Amino acid sequence: MIKKLVAEFIGTAWLVLGGCGAAVLAAAYPELGIGFVGVSLAFGLTVVTMAYAIGHVSGCHLNPAVSVGLWAGGRFRGADLPGYVIAQVAGGLAGAGVLYVIASGQAGFDVSAGFASNGYGEHSPGGYALTAALVCEVVMTFAFLFVIMGSTHGRAPAGFAPLAIGLCLTLIHLISIPVTNTSVNPARSTGPAILVGGWALQQLWLFWVAPLVGAVLAGVTYRWLSKDDPAPVDVSGKA
Amino acid sequence: MIKKLVAEFIGTAWLVLGGCGAAVLAAAYPELGIGFVGVSLAFGLTVVTMAYAIGHVSGCHLNPAVSVGLWAGGRFRGADLPGYVIAQVAGGLAGAGVLYVIASGQAGFDVSAGFASNGYGEHSPGGYALTAALVCEVVMTFAFLFVIMGSTHGRAPAGFAPLAIGLCLTLIHLISIPVTNTSVNPARSTGPAILVGGWALQQLWLFWVAPLVGAVLAGVTYRWLSKDDPAPVDVSGKA
Amino acid sequence: MIKKLVAEFIGTAWLVLGGCGAAVLAAAYPELGIGFVGVSLAFGLTVVTMAYAIGHVSGCHLNPAVSVGLWAGGRFRGADLPGYVIAQVAGGLAGAGVLYVIASGQAGFDVSAGFASNGYGEHSPGGYALTAALVCEVVMTFAFLFVIMGSTHGRAPAGFAPLAIGLCLTLIHLISIPVTNTSVNPARSTGPAILVGGWALQQLWLFWVAPLVGAVLAGVTYRWLSKDDPAPVDVSGKA
Amino acid sequence: MIKKLVAEFIGTAWLVLGGCGAAVLAAAYPELGIGFVGVSLAFGLTVVTMAYAIGHVSGCHLNPAVSVGLWAGGRFRGADLPGYVIAQVAGGLAGAGVLYVIASGQAGFDVSAGFASNGYGEHSPGGYALTAALVCEVVMTFAFLFVIMGSTHGRAPAGFAPLAIGLCLTLIHLISIPVTNTSVNPARSTGPAILVGGWALQQLWLFWVAPLVGAVLAGVTYRWLSKDDPAPVDVSGKA
Repeated sequence: MIKKLVAEFIGTAWLVLGGCGAAVLAAAYPELGIGFVGVSLAFGLTVVTMAYAIGHVSGCHLNPAVSVGLWAGGRFRGADLPGYVIAQVAGGLAGAGVLYVIASGQAGFDVSAGFASNGYGEHSPGGYALTAALVCEVVMTFAFLFVIMGSTHGRAPAGFAPLAIGLCLTLIHLISIPVTNTSVNPARSTGPAILVGGWALQQLWLFWVAPLVGAVLAGVTYRWLSKDDPAPVDVSGKA
Repeated sequence: MIKKLVAEFIGTAWLVLGGCGAAVLAAAYPELGIGFVGVSLAFGLTVVTMAYAIGHVSGCHLNPAVSVGLWAGGRFRGADLPGYVIAQVAGGLAGAGVLYVIASGQAGFDVSAGFASNGYGEHSPGGYALTAALVCEVVMTFAFLFVIMGSTHGRAPAGFAPLAIGLCLTLIHLISIPVTNTSVNPARSTGPAILVGGWALQQLWLFWVAPLVGAVLAGVTYRWLSKDDPAPVDVSGKA
Repeated sequence: MIKKLVAEFIGTAWLVLGGCGAAVLAAAYPELGIGFVGVSLAFGLTVVTMAYAIGHVSGCHLNPAVSVGLWAGGRFRGADLPGYVIAQVAGGLAGAGVLYVIASGQAGFDVSAGFASNGYGEHSPGGYALTAALVCEVVMTFAFLFVIMGSTHGRAPAGFAPLAIGLCLTLIHLISIPVTNTSVNPARSTGPAILVGGWALQQLWLFWVAPLVGAVLAGVTYRWLSKDDPAPVDVSGKA
Repeated sequence: MIKKLVAEFIGTAWLVLGGCGAAVLAAAYPELGIGFVGVSLAFGLTVVTMAYAIGHVSGCHLNPAVSVGLWAGGRFRGADLPGYVIAQVAGGLAGAGVLYVIASGQAGFDVSAGFASNGYGEHSPGGYALTAALVCEVVMTFAFLFVIMGSTHGRAPAGFAPLAIGLCLTLIHLISIPVTNTSVNPARSTGPAILVGGWALQQLWLFWVAPLVGAVLAGVTYRWLSKDDPAPVDVSGKA
């Protein structure tokens, strides 16, 4: 179990360092910056790379909503939830910390400029209201878990799940960065929010509630869709 | 059968929410927007993700032209066509509806600005005339179905069809967004058109006729190419 | 054999329509255009999609340099070269013709603006001199054929060759569009050049000579690297 | 052994020509340039393409840090290190040389403008200080080797390692080009630095020290994570 938790810790740190790092360091670089397309790719590739690297160790959830959704879908043991969630949140904080060290090496860096935190209302990148943000995070996490449940199903082609899941996270960012800066992952939201404080912490509740609701709905829905064929748990695609 | 139709409904909703959502919410975001490259990726990834998730449930058509083309190619039962098409159109409408809820959370949102509808002539993004739009949609859908028929053929490498098919949709968008905003999918066109009304409904006929013509031509062509080797139906690549 | 030639014809038409189409129709669209990144993706994806669709029919060469390089590498029969090359050149011309029909549906379209033709000197996008263009096309085609020979080798992972080869073409475009508009494929160069005429035809020789030289060098080199393990021909990766 | 060294030489030349070539030739092209997103894709695709082409010949390390990290992780023989490193550095220099020939075909080319060299402080693209650059290169190389160790592990899905590893390099560039122009590879840094001279050579030490430190840490860490299951060496994913 300790190896699984270390794997989740390292993987989630990579997700936050990679995804938020691309946003903070490279998105708005003058002329050559990577924009939302590059940030979307970066978040997705953190999952693709880690799912191939540690999928066979811990399942590579990297996200409390994924662990909870897989539990709701009958693919993960409830007894393992607390350990996984703690390792993920700790990893997210560690990733944000390493990013802070790197980002502060540039003159003029100011963590209160946002540091890739998630937000709604006046802290939504595009100024989207609370309801739109809530609906968006619920629906996006629903789709994310639906794809995770389906692509790791025993009848899906073996080995491709990490690609499908990682590219799903890329897709979710391509759609929703303007709305909430895209969470679908409470651990990803919590790391930067702790460093930013203030409004980021005050709005953090939404990025726990909405992803968990969407994830549970998807787990239950897909379980019904596939209830006649029991399927394995392994997110790495090695069904 | 009900599970197949639910899968097609959810999948097509995701295609419209994801593809049109990226276009409406993120394409023209100042400085950091995803542009046509991001929208093209988004449409393709809706198919990649859903094909791995539900390919083994319903075949993951998500598109009346795909169902009709596969039928013309001898890979899909005509008796299943009506149910599939209804589920797809309903899903497209649902996806457009969810997008409407999210998009209207931003001050100044105006659905009549286009809402990612398809069009020709003065409603073509680049002002392309009716004939060019018609040729473009026929040819693009021909290529799409040709790739679908080929990559799900029993002699193609197993498991890769969702990638080939999804990335084909990305490619089609990279080429043809300026011409018609890219349809190749009557269900994708119908959802937003119903919400926009007016010109979008008046021009909708083309985005049913052209994709269906192109799809049937491709189904018949590929069937001839492969007539000596019978092949399975499953779009998920599990040949 | 007729089916193989039809497959090569359709596939090469798709390569030119898709790659050059993305360049002509979408690259420079105001604000939202796909730029060289989108064009590079488009060219690569024409090969990814067709290699999964017709790799098991014709090998999916789509390029006289590929056919000649595979022959030099001992993977393709010399007797089949003439038919393949003729089908490829005819397909390239057909793809350019369809693109012409679509592109001329926009007011102000002018084929003499370039139509994605390849060139050097004053017709190089970045003004690169003849020698640089020649070296570039030889080296890029060398790498392309080296990757084709290697990824279709019997000891390479089965099924992935279309991805490796298509993404190699994307990579080649990311590097070299500014130098020659990127050919590495005489059939791709010939189609647009015939429609543009003039300078495009006068400079066409380089885009036959350089790719063929690079391809032969790579075929011979990889054959030496792998001479102890005989390997199959199939470009589709079904080794 | 000679074939392995030739493969490493060609592969590393392709990595430098492709990745640095995209940066030098295409990144800042007016209006249509590929930016950091395109450069990130290019670096990653050099590895994807070569890993499928020569993974089964030499393991496709293309990077002294990879060879050393795999040795630290118990996957590569120490006796083979000197030959691999020499072939990689020579290949990197050859790739930079070919790029120089092509790039100097454009009027106004000036190698001292940077030529894609790596740097810190005033030679960091975004002006990042020495400490940030050091931390960044150590952490990025740690993640790179961690993904390499994991995705080539015997329990990871076979055949996908080249994708996971190449896309990890893309991700690393999406994050860190602004910090150091991204190395994680001493051979990639050495080639251009020799042609640029001056500051590029003076700062070259960091791009040997940091990647090697990060690589060794990752090799040891992953070895501990997987110490109960012995795994094969082959980077090509043919576990």
